[in-house]
Amino acid sequence: MNTVVSFGEIMLRLSTERHLRFSQSKSFAASYGGGEFNVAVSLANYGIESEFVTRIPDNEIGHCALKEMRKMNVTSENVLFGGDRLGIYFLETGAGNRGSNVVYDRANSAIATIQPGTFDWEKILKGKTWFHWSGITPAISQNAADECLLAIKTAHKLGLTISCDLNYRSKLWKYGKTPADIMPELLQYCHVILGDIDTAYFMLGKEKVAPNYTDENALPSLYEKLFDHCTNLKIAATTLRYSINASHQKIGGILYDGEKIYKAAVKEVTPVVDRVGTGDAFMGGLIYGLLNPSFENQKTLEFAVAACCLKHTIVGDYNLATLEEIEHIIEGDGSAKVSR
Amino acid sequence: MNTVVSFGEIMLRLSTERHLRFSQSKSFAASYGGGEFNVAVSLANYGIESEFVTRIPDNEIGHCALKEMRKMNVTSENVLFGGDRLGIYFLETGAGNRGSNVVYDRANSAIATIQPGTFDWEKILKGKTWFHWSGITPAISQNAADECLLAIKTAHKLGLTISCDLNYRSKLWKYGKTPADIMPELLQYCHVILGDIDTAYFMLGKEKVAPNYTDENALPSLYEKLFDHCTNLKIAATTLRYSINASHQKIGGILYDGEKIYKAAVKEVTPVVDRVGTGDAFMGGLIYGLLNPSFENQKTLEFAVAACCLKHTIVGDYNLATLEEIEHIIEGDGSAKVSR
Amino acid sequence: MNTVVSFGEIMLRLSTERHLRFSQSKSFAASYGGGEFNVAVSLANYGIESEFVTRIPDNEIGHCALKEMRKMNVTSENVLFGGDRLGIYFLETGAGNRGSNVVYDRANSAIATIQPGTFDWEKILKGKTWFHWSGITPAISQNAADECLLAIKTAHKLGLTISCDLNYRSKLWKYGKTPADIMPELLQYCHVILGDIDTAYFMLGKEKVAPNYTDENALPSLYEKLFDHCTNLKIAATTLRYSINASHQKIGGILYDGEKIYKAAVKEVTPVVDRVGTGDAFMGGLIYGLLNPSFENQKTLEFAVAACCLKHTIVGDYNLATLEEIEHIIEGDGSAKVSR
Amino acid sequence: MNTVVSFGEIMLRLSTERHLRFSQSKSFAASYGGGEFNVAVSLANYGIESEFVTRIPDNEIGHCALKEMRKMNVTSENVLFGGDRLGIYFLETGAGNRGSNVVYDRANSAIATIQPGTFDWEKILKGKTWFHWSGITPAISQNAADECLLAIKTAHKLGLTISCDLNYRSKLWKYGKTPADIMPELLQYCHVILGDIDTAYFMLGKEKVAPNYTDENALPSLYEKLFDHCTNLKIAATTLRYSINASHQKIGGILYDGEKIYKAAVKEVTPVVDRVGTGDAFMGGLIYGLLNPSFENQKTLEFAVAACCLKHTIVGDYNLATLEEIEHIIEGDGSAKVSR
Amino acid sequence: MNTVVSFGEIMLRLSTERHLRFSQSKSFAASYGGGEFNVAVSLANYGIESEFVTRIPDNEIGHCALKEMRKMNVTSENVLFGGDRLGIYFLETGAGNRGSNVVYDRANSAIATIQPGTFDWEKILKGKTWFHWSGITPAISQNAADECLLAIKTAHKLGLTISCDLNYRSKLWKYGKTPADIMPELLQYCHVILGDIDTAYFMLGKEKVAPNYTDENALPSLYEKLFDHCTNLKIAATTLRYSINASHQKIGGILYDGEKIYKAAVKEVTPVVDRVGTGDAFMGGLIYGLLNPSFENQKTLEFAVAACCLKHTIVGDYNLATLEEIEHIIEGDGSAKVSR
Amino acid sequence: MNTVVSFGEIMLRLSTERHLRFSQSKSFAASYGGGEFNVAVSLANYGIESEFVTRIPDNEIGHCALKEMRKMNVTSENVLFGGDRLGIYFLETGAGNRGSNVVYDRANSAIATIQPGTFDWEKILKGKTWFHWSGITPAISQNAADECLLAIKTAHKLGLTISCDLNYRSKLWKYGKTPADIMPELLQYCHVILGDIDTAYFMLGKEKVAPNYTDENALPSLYEKLFDHCTNLKIAATTLRYSINASHQKIGGILYDGEKIYKAAVKEVTPVVDRVGTGDAFMGGLIYGLLNPSFENQKTLEFAVAACCLKHTIVGDYNLATLEEIEHIIEGDGSAKVSR
Repeated sequence: MNTVVSFGEIMLRLSTERHLRFSQSKSFAASYGGGEFNVAVSLANYGIESEFVTRIPDNEIGHCALKEMRKMNVTSENVLFGGDRLGIYFLETGAGNRGSNVVYDRANSAIATIQPGTFDWEKILKGKTWFHWSGITPAISQNAADECLLAIKTAHKLGLTISCDLNYRSKLWKYGKTPADIMPELLQYCHVILGDIDTAYFMLGKEKVAPNYTDENALPSLYEKLFDHCTNLKIAATTLRYSINASHQKIGGILYDGEKIYKAAVKEVTPVVDRVGTGDAFMGGLIYGLLNPSFENQKTLEFAVAACCLKHTIVGDYNLATLEEIEHIIEGDGSAKVSR
Repeated sequence: MNTVVSFGEIMLRLSTERHLRFSQSKSFAASYGGGEFNVAVSLANYGIESEFVTRIPDNEIGHCALKEMRKMNVTSENVLFGGDRLGIYFLETGAGNRGSNVVYDRANSAIATIQPGTFDWEKILKGKTWFHWSGITPAISQNAADECLLAIKTAHKLGLTISCDLNYRSKLWKYGKTPADIMPELLQYCHVILGDIDTAYFMLGKEKVAPNYTDENALPSLYEKLFDHCTNLKIAATTLRYSINASHQKIGGILYDGEKIYKAAVKEVTPVVDRVGTGDAFMGGLIYGLLNPSFENQKTLEFAVAACCLKHTIVGDYNLATLEEIEHIIEGDGSAKVSR
Repeated sequence: MNTVVSFGEIMLRLSTERHLRFSQSKSFAASYGGGEFNVAVSLANYGIESEFVTRIPDNEIGHCALKEMRKMNVTSENVLFGGDRLGIYFLETGAGNRGSNVVYDRANSAIATIQPGTFDWEKILKGKTWFHWSGITPAISQNAADECLLAIKTAHKLGLTISCDLNYRSKLWKYGKTPADIMPELLQYCHVILGDIDTAYFMLGKEKVAPNYTDENALPSLYEKLFDHCTNLKIAATTLRYSINASHQKIGGILYDGEKIYKAAVKEVTPVVDRVGTGDAFMGGLIYGLLNPSFENQKTLEFAVAACCLKHTIVGDYNLATLEEIEHIIEGDGSAKVSR
Repeated sequence: MNTVVSFGEIMLRLSTERHLRFSQSKSFAASYGGGEFNVAVSLANYGIESEFVTRIPDNEIGHCALKEMRKMNVTSENVLFGGDRLGIYFLETGAGNRGSNVVYDRANSAIATIQPGTFDWEKILKGKTWFHWSGITPAISQNAADECLLAIKTAHKLGLTISCDLNYRSKLWKYGKTPADIMPELLQYCHVILGDIDTAYFMLGKEKVAPNYTDENALPSLYEKLFDHCTNLKIAATTLRYSINASHQKIGGILYDGEKIYKAAVKEVTPVVDRVGTGDAFMGGLIYGLLNPSFENQKTLEFAVAACCLKHTIVGDYNLATLEEIEHIIEGDGSAKVSR
Repeated sequence: MNTVVSFGEIMLRLSTERHLRFSQSKSFAASYGGGEFNVAVSLANYGIESEFVTRIPDNEIGHCALKEMRKMNVTSENVLFGGDRLGIYFLETGAGNRGSNVVYDRANSAIATIQPGTFDWEKILKGKTWFHWSGITPAISQNAADECLLAIKTAHKLGLTISCDLNYRSKLWKYGKTPADIMPELLQYCHVILGDIDTAYFMLGKEKVAPNYTDENALPSLYEKLFDHCTNLKIAATTLRYSINASHQKIGGILYDGEKIYKAAVKEVTPVVDRVGTGDAFMGGLIYGLLNPSFENQKTLEFAVAACCLKHTIVGDYNLATLEEIEHIIEGDGSAKVSR
Repeated sequence: MNTVVSFGEIMLRLSTERHLRFSQSKSFAASYGGGEFNVAVSLANYGIESEFVTRIPDNEIGHCALKEMRKMNVTSENVLFGGDRLGIYFLETGAGNRGSNVVYDRANSAIATIQPGTFDWEKILKGKTWFHWSGITPAISQNAADECLLAIKTAHKLGLTISCDLNYRSKLWKYGKTPADIMPELLQYCHVILGDIDTAYFMLGKEKVAPNYTDENALPSLYEKLFDHCTNLKIAATTLRYSINASHQKIGGILYDGEKIYKAAVKEVTPVVDRVGTGDAFMGGLIYGLLNPSFENQKTLEFAVAACCLKHTIVGDYNLATLEEIEHIIEGDGSAKVSR
């Protein structure tokens, strides 16, 4: 059986409800999530054996995060206790032409202050199928970036498939390094990369580029520069997002396998219940499709897009859509009748 | 004065809030409803003397249901205490392309386990104007179907107008009978039937049919088969529902009085606050219109459609729209300005 | 530095949540607001020194209103204690084709029962830049109308700029006078008036008029009658509101400076989170723009429209949009991406 | 069958929750109650036919009050619509050594502004057994006092038993009359009076008195002055309340039937969930006992005390304790084991 | 390492909050629990490998129960899907002299309708240390009683320690059998029994007995009859509960090991936050103590009593007290200072 | 007029509600508080001009803290923006024998990372009457300790009265220094110290001591060592707290003015609604009393004790008791009757 190991941070998410602004809120909804953890939950939810590796503080808040992992059937046997705090992010959910707003409070978290070499990656990754990381972890701190590189190198050595969601966050990368300082080395081992082409170029320190995703003929040559840098790369994919407003999105996707451009039809998503984690839902769908022997690339891409669409209707960081619900969307049925 | 007696089940409805999925909910909103009860509330709300007949368990949950009937001004003087439990249904309210989901837990309810002959229908129906039932009651259990037949026959004998909402629910009908085994006998006494033509054919055991509701010329002959079977039938009506997604519906309606097809303009309904009970709101509007001497059939249909539209904006099973609000919609004013 | 003094009523607002109707609510969200106070908050929020003058009862509910003023950084040093009660309004927030509904319970409030001459307007307004009032205050009671006139006359004498939002409310004006009895005298001192042209004519006791706001050439002559009556008038502005339904509005605006018609592009607003106070948000934006030396009239109008649009996404009476968020909308970016 | 008619005011109660102070509350729990209505609910709850007579405004808030009456099975057929507003009271529930705090906002309510003679008391009271009123109604306004007198005189003429709970509220009686101006005439028709002896003396304009309720021998002569004034008086009763703190009360009672003093053992009540309406619960128990042919005076008093005790554990204005639960307490079982 | 397997039912618990009665609740807090599951959670919480065996329906509500098991670190690998519904119980939490009230709705649950022999007990219990069941399972249905017997016999054959909490519930045992028909056979294999002596006698069909737990000399001979019947019995224990009222309990305990009576000092428990599951907390503490080689019988008993006391302060069915917190109580420190 | 300047940290407090444990909470109540800020609120609440000096991050969470200061009428004109985060603490409120639990997450807060010399203390303190600090600020970081010393020295130079609440927190002091390294220098300037005698000795690096507060004769010589070290000391006071359990406390107090021991009667406090901030309420009362020319030392102590008692009934960090409520308690009236 396939086992996917994801590595990254799990945070406490504190969000206002019913579109209240921060200054109006006398309470915050508390949940747990983070880019890579959200992918792990998606996979567990699809029946894949899914493990999450992180460090959490040995206090009550850390234990809450651990309980969440267990609840969602994500294996936590290599989670370490240590550090002082769980990273936090505050979320104010927008509506209409007011966007959602995130306030990060994740500096000095248990994973940001990890001593490189703390995890025994040989032991953790042995016998596993797939290793997933994202551009958030190396953005947190030099230590986290170093540990991430150790994990990637070990995964490479042990022959795991390696995937990365580029996940650029302008409010991170505060420790003195730019993506171009760090990401090229990490990305070169990847087999699967999810991200905008311009983001990929930026992280690899290449020239600025403004890809036209509707021009399918021009895309292969743009993606090829990723393949040039990442010699193991097999799949590059991009979520296409057209934001009408905070409550109305259109979602499509592009996948390139080094030979051919695959394209998924753009779907309407309105209203948006929760915008956060929709990219992670795409990533989870992408890995699921690539692991599923019965899926062609076109089906894989459509699965990722449909998973992403459904996540917009679900509160919280991670996707709770079922395989059956996603298949429904792929089959073009967005009518969403009452099931009774 | 007109008195309408509705017979059926009142359930405890346990719903998640703010679009949460079942697994995310630490609490359920508790309310009370059910297809036939919802019709009774609509009528009471329009100033019609409205009675509901059912059986509820003599425990605290049953008494809550009784208090709800009273609050809504629905006469409960023939409600019996008995049986072990109030039926329950769990509701997860969808959004966008994620549909709402219902989990029924209504087996062995007080009404499902009724001993046929328990109600004294002669006494209950004497002096009343109208008897309403729906296809849900005979779908629950053989006992409920038998009691329903007794009620219908008595209503027929006493000369009441009889109406039925076909209300097909695939998750019910689990006791070994199909609709075609049961419904033909019950339906033959009806004067008013609400339902899709294909559902009616299916329940009457007739051939499969795929009616094109935009082809007005073809509809009379399709409806005629209902009139052939139900010799008292005066009005057959159908709610037209176009589901864009769970948050966006378009609602129209068709009414056939044995001579002429009436059609109501399709109205946009977005966002949908609560999809459940919108068909019951249509049914309540239909009965109200047919009882109202000043309403022509066209007005009756438009009233039913407008009532149905407004119900989509109201939380809970039954409609709380006022006569004045419905008239507003009929007059074409959907601008919904603040009244102040 | 500019100081704007607003005069009017602050009320306790009791609203149902999650689209519940009054009869379904076991609790009311409690907040504080009112047309003129909402303008004061907008201005404080934009960094203008903003003072609110009113009378509140010396009980716990009155003190809650005072705490709200302080929290929002609105100067309250001339707020008086007195009277028996804080005005209340109940709000049921609509959705789709069901409009919001307001039940006023503001008769005999502390401000409605004010003895004219209670406030020392000379002292209050000395050294201030701008005085703002609205058509709500004279609609409450003769006493409030009289006090309002005293304030306006003093402001005029001291050379403050005077602005008025016409704010016609059909559920008020219950004390035996019509707007045409009262408003002409009050309006003649104004430099800035916000309101529909037909409302202005109605309040000034002029002929009924049905302005066509798309016919820009016809507008100047219509606005001129205001300028004729109000000899100090410099700016007349109108919020253009097209109500698709309670959840979907389109907002534009017109501004006339006695010479030229300015027009702002109509913006889509969907979904509407809270419709109340959106006109006050426009008014707040208008004053801000007129006080801002770097704003031309066109920019001022666009600022007012954008502020109004954003208010629709914010719960409560007053606008919490920031200068930065409003500028974003003016620049045409309604995509409302997550800021992270 | 006995029918008890209660007359008075039903208010909207807005209370903070979880011991929050007013200034901390962003919402108020909304319920409906009032001294005389609470008695009516108690009686309906015990199976007595119970009617409440009042006037409510014909707006949504008034209709909520009406729905509450129906829900609680209190007959409302003589409730009139009229007036401008429903009375309101704000409640901040204390704890420990911080007492609960009530802010009244009931001036100019529908019942306070009643035109004397509005109710057709002959028709309302004909065929009824008992009329109940309290000292709150004449404390609201002269009009309410006048209407109350009309009701009492009619009840007297028609031979109903008349009961009164003295219910002195120092924050009321603001319309220029003292209790001694008004109450003597109203009280003289009463058969049953509930209240402290010193309150009774005060309301009757008699000398100040400080009764020692532990001195049973001295009590008869004190109560006799009530019997002297009220020539029909049969029963005078007093709730004995020892307030340790807001969360801990001790409750006993005294009843005098003109011949003998009856005394109920003092019971511990801790914690107090809701202190409001506990006197009304005593009153409801007293009427129930006096109507119950199987109850001796001692049992009646113990029933009233036990009902009062249980009300302290119930949220809201009125008592929801069942006959069975009250009997349990009378039998001395306060252990309150889980029933399962 | 020790592994304890518990067998029984997990239910959906729907409880009112803030002491509301059922008829006042517009929502129910939803959690999951049940006598044997609660023991399993206690043990997992103490670091014991703890497994729960049951059957749950394959619907969303069943999956919620499964997620709860995982969250609490209770092994669920032998949980089966099947049956139609998860059992439900409604809970109204009392206060003071009003007791809590339970309404069961657990008939026809997945475990009640289990076909005996469905579980492969040989496989499940192999290599495990301890098997725990309670008197609730055989009280549900004949099928559940039969399956329970199969489990016990297999546990006996495989040499596991077997424990039982007698847990008599008068609202169960509705399927035609009395405890004395069923329990003697099941109990005879037990090594550890928790329960009142009179309950044990009643379940074993012995004479009625009214043990005086303060008479330590008389207890051994009373307990001996259990040892006579249950030839493997090593430990019989009883929770001593003195109920002052629903919010104030006193908790002690007795343990007899066939030789000596152990007694734990009675502890004050006030206020009671949640009374349900406190006996299960005692049972969990008892098993933990007996499995802990460093615990003497006296310490074990004190641990069970302290665990039981702390559970009264915790919302929900199962105990969340930590080992450290329990030790604190044993050491006599009930002062409960803030830890900071 | 007197102006009191308090210096320290304001934190976001995230607390579970209704006695839920952290792992059960899906939301946290959000409020703002901190030892020194709580004192500032008490004083503002008593009508003293009260200013709070701190640094907060310039993000939405920091602005929420600022709004809270304003709401509570605490002057914030010298609050600086800077640093990365607002300190956080998580609070789980206990009950009965389960104590409350605090998880600190305040490292690297805006005030902890302050560059010493950032505040212009000369300007801030000029013309002010009193400077208040507590032992928490120097416990956070070396920087905070350094800034605190600068403030104290400036206050001393400018002749302000200086007070300190020792406030020892074992979970702080993590930056390599012990209280004895830091506190002696800071304390020497104080005129008023609140704290246990043993804590004072510990912080001053003196011998361990176990004072017997019931032995009034022995206390002066113990307090004298503080006076010896702190040459300006005028008042040393101690809150006496007897913790029966988390819901039941007994509160008294001792005050020594260098000549005489004053003692306040011990008061019962039950139930405890919120234990946090009760010491700060004592401190606020102490300063108020010392500033009040009409208060003798005995009255001052009783005022502080009564304020402390009332705070236990109030949710949140700071005291909302009014002067009138506190006087009530001093006068011995703890009966807490309903005010109506």
